[in-house]
Amino acid sequence: MSVTASAGFEAAGVRAGLKASGNPDLALVVNRGPLDSAAVVFTSNRSQANPIIWSKQVIADGAVSAIVLNSGGANCFTGAQGFQTTHATAEAVARALDVSAGDVLVCSTGLIGEQLPLDKLVAGVATAADSLSTEGGPDAAAAIITTDSRPKTAVVTGDGWSVGGMAKGAGMLAPGLATMLVVITTDAVLDSPALDSALRAATRVSFDRLDSDGCMSTNDQVSLLASGASGIAPGIDAFTAALTELCLDLARQLQSDAEGASHDIAIEVVNAATEDDAVEVARSVARNNLFKAAVFGNDPNWGRVLAAIGTTRAPFDPYAVDVTMNGVRVCSNGAPDRPRDEVDLAPRAVHVLIDLKAGDATATVLTNDLTHDYVHENSAYAS
Amino acid sequence: MSVTASAGFEAAGVRAGLKASGNPDLALVVNRGPLDSAAVVFTSNRSQANPIIWSKQVIADGAVSAIVLNSGGANCFTGAQGFQTTHATAEAVARALDVSAGDVLVCSTGLIGEQLPLDKLVAGVATAADSLSTEGGPDAAAAIITTDSRPKTAVVTGDGWSVGGMAKGAGMLAPGLATMLVVITTDAVLDSPALDSALRAATRVSFDRLDSDGCMSTNDQVSLLASGASGIAPGIDAFTAALTELCLDLARQLQSDAEGASHDIAIEVVNAATEDDAVEVARSVARNNLFKAAVFGNDPNWGRVLAAIGTTRAPFDPYAVDVTMNGVRVCSNGAPDRPRDEVDLAPRAVHVLIDLKAGDATATVLTNDLTHDYVHENSAYAS
Repeated sequence: MSVTASAGFEAAGVRAGLKASGNPDLALVVNRGPLDSAAVVFTSNRSQANPIIWSKQVIADGAVSAIVLNSGGANCFTGAQGFQTTHATAEAVARALDVSAGDVLVCSTGLIGEQLPLDKLVAGVATAADSLSTEGGPDAAAAIITTDSRPKTAVVTGDGWSVGGMAKGAGMLAPGLATMLVVITTDAVLDSPALDSALRAATRVSFDRLDSDGCMSTNDQVSLLASGASGIAPGIDAFTAALTELCLDLARQLQSDAEGASHDIAIEVVNAATEDDAVEVARSVARNNLFKAAVFGNDPNWGRVLAAIGTTRAPFDPYAVDVTMNGVRVCSNGAPDRPRDEVDLAPRAVHVLIDLKAGDATATVLTNDLTHDYVHENSAYAS
Repeated sequence: MSVTASAGFEAAGVRAGLKASGNPDLALVVNRGPLDSAAVVFTSNRSQANPIIWSKQVIADGAVSAIVLNSGGANCFTGAQGFQTTHATAEAVARALDVSAGDVLVCSTGLIGEQLPLDKLVAGVATAADSLSTEGGPDAAAAIITTDSRPKTAVVTGDGWSVGGMAKGAGMLAPGLATMLVVITTDAVLDSPALDSALRAATRVSFDRLDSDGCMSTNDQVSLLASGASGIAPGIDAFTAALTELCLDLARQLQSDAEGASHDIAIEVVNAATEDDAVEVARSVARNNLFKAAVFGNDPNWGRVLAAIGTTRAPFDPYAVDVTMNGVRVCSNGAPDRPRDEVDLAPRAVHVLIDLKAGDATATVLTNDLTHDYVHENSAYAS
């Protein structure tokens, strides 16, 4: 399951004492080969955590032996001391596994602006290295969560090979070219450039189209490691399709567990001039607090959808747009159509279909509603 | 007071029956001259209400005799019927006042996507025309509010002339080149190009820097009417300064009455490379839901400030930035400085000072926190 579903990988999740709750907070995933090829996409936030700065150096040569992840602290805006903590963590993993520290990715998540306790990290790494197992995937997935209510894992099986992964993320959930912490492993035989190509294609239409709260993290990292242990080299298209399916599965799990959310909303834009336009229009609706609060109240306030679209640069005629909410076309050609009280927003799943009539491109962005619980959890956030 | 503080203006506010509550919902402001010069700035939202489309035609020649405003409905995305309603409302004002309909501005505010009852509007216009008075400013200001808890008015006096105004707006409060509904009157002698220049200069540093909830309205309109009744032609700099003071006063009133807000937050960015950069950085923080929810909980979570800044295009070095909250420098050179528990966020007024150390430009954006009450009011919005 999870990151140990594919042959050639071992993992562990342990308690390093970083979280005040005492819950598991350190995960280690090791690639036993024979290959050590990898690809990573990072947050496009220009305020980047120390693990991001470190991991960008590690992935430069496309080779990764292991990845260590901690919850309980983001190690972001912690200065030179914080970078030294990341470096020393990678060194501890290198010593325990007899690999090069330059082949060890590091990920951190939690509060920004607080130093991590290096002694606890180093001790946790040693414990994790002793606990490594081909059955360790679920433990690793449990150790990386923060405000998540449950671990997120997924597996997709190919023809003689497989791809599996784990994810965490419940807030600050608006990835840009990456997302939250995700580790994906495969036993397929693929080199680093092929993995990079597949990973960018898959994340572009999955994590990049998840926008729970409009807030981009400083620590987002999606890592893909290939062991080649299956001995099978799939076609790049087949592998990319499987990887995309896996990423969409994990993205939907992130959406359904987003902080305080009571609705999972899919904003589908059709007949846009370009795919970028479709994404921009869908994202403008996904980030509109008034629309999101209305959905929380089961109010099909489609005027707020159109007000949001009007802030974009996408070509459209406001008097040609149709809006359909959960199957009821409430607006056609920019004017009222069916009565809004025909729309049932009681179910958790909400589908907003926006027909721009400006071309033939389409895109869907996943988001959540804005709720009392979201405000509460994020006004009291402390870990 | 309000729009009748300056000589040459009459106003009225009446009950036309547009609001379910039965509260006043129609305002009329008339310029008795001798001048009829005017300037207007409109929302930059591309989804524009029918009154916006109409008023853009009216202001083309710089002459305005009257402005009619209704709450109880935005008349936006209401198709050809909605535009006809706006046109007929202007015609009703023209008949009652014996002016040209082409010199009558129209403003509407309320729910998007619902037709306004034309018969009630026409009857309300007749009632308002009969009620016009040089003391009618406060009644007009009361008739344009929606979810506002109180009317907003302000007056600034020059040397023998004055400028006064009224504003409404409590939600969908993120103007772009305009804001909410604002009517400003002056008895100064100024032609339309001078008024336009002064109005654009004043709104750029006042309403354009108010961003309560990141949501830009479809109906924003700021109108400035000059009667010339004082017989005095002030210098353009003196007039612009007075107008800017008035607009800032009204903007702060809008901020302090924003839907559900419990904090008034000023995001001040200093030492940016350009003024546009300073505004972009301040706005990115003002629109960050996690930061806004933290302020609601009196939590000085400065990491969320830096995470927001990282999403902008403004030049800055993440390891040079200082952040000071209510006088306590919690982050210096991108690392922790004073302990966050020294910051007192209990007062309603919150000041966030961001020193980018990238130049010498500065700007301040006004915003509010994200509260349970904001979510509640906007999930139950119905008027």
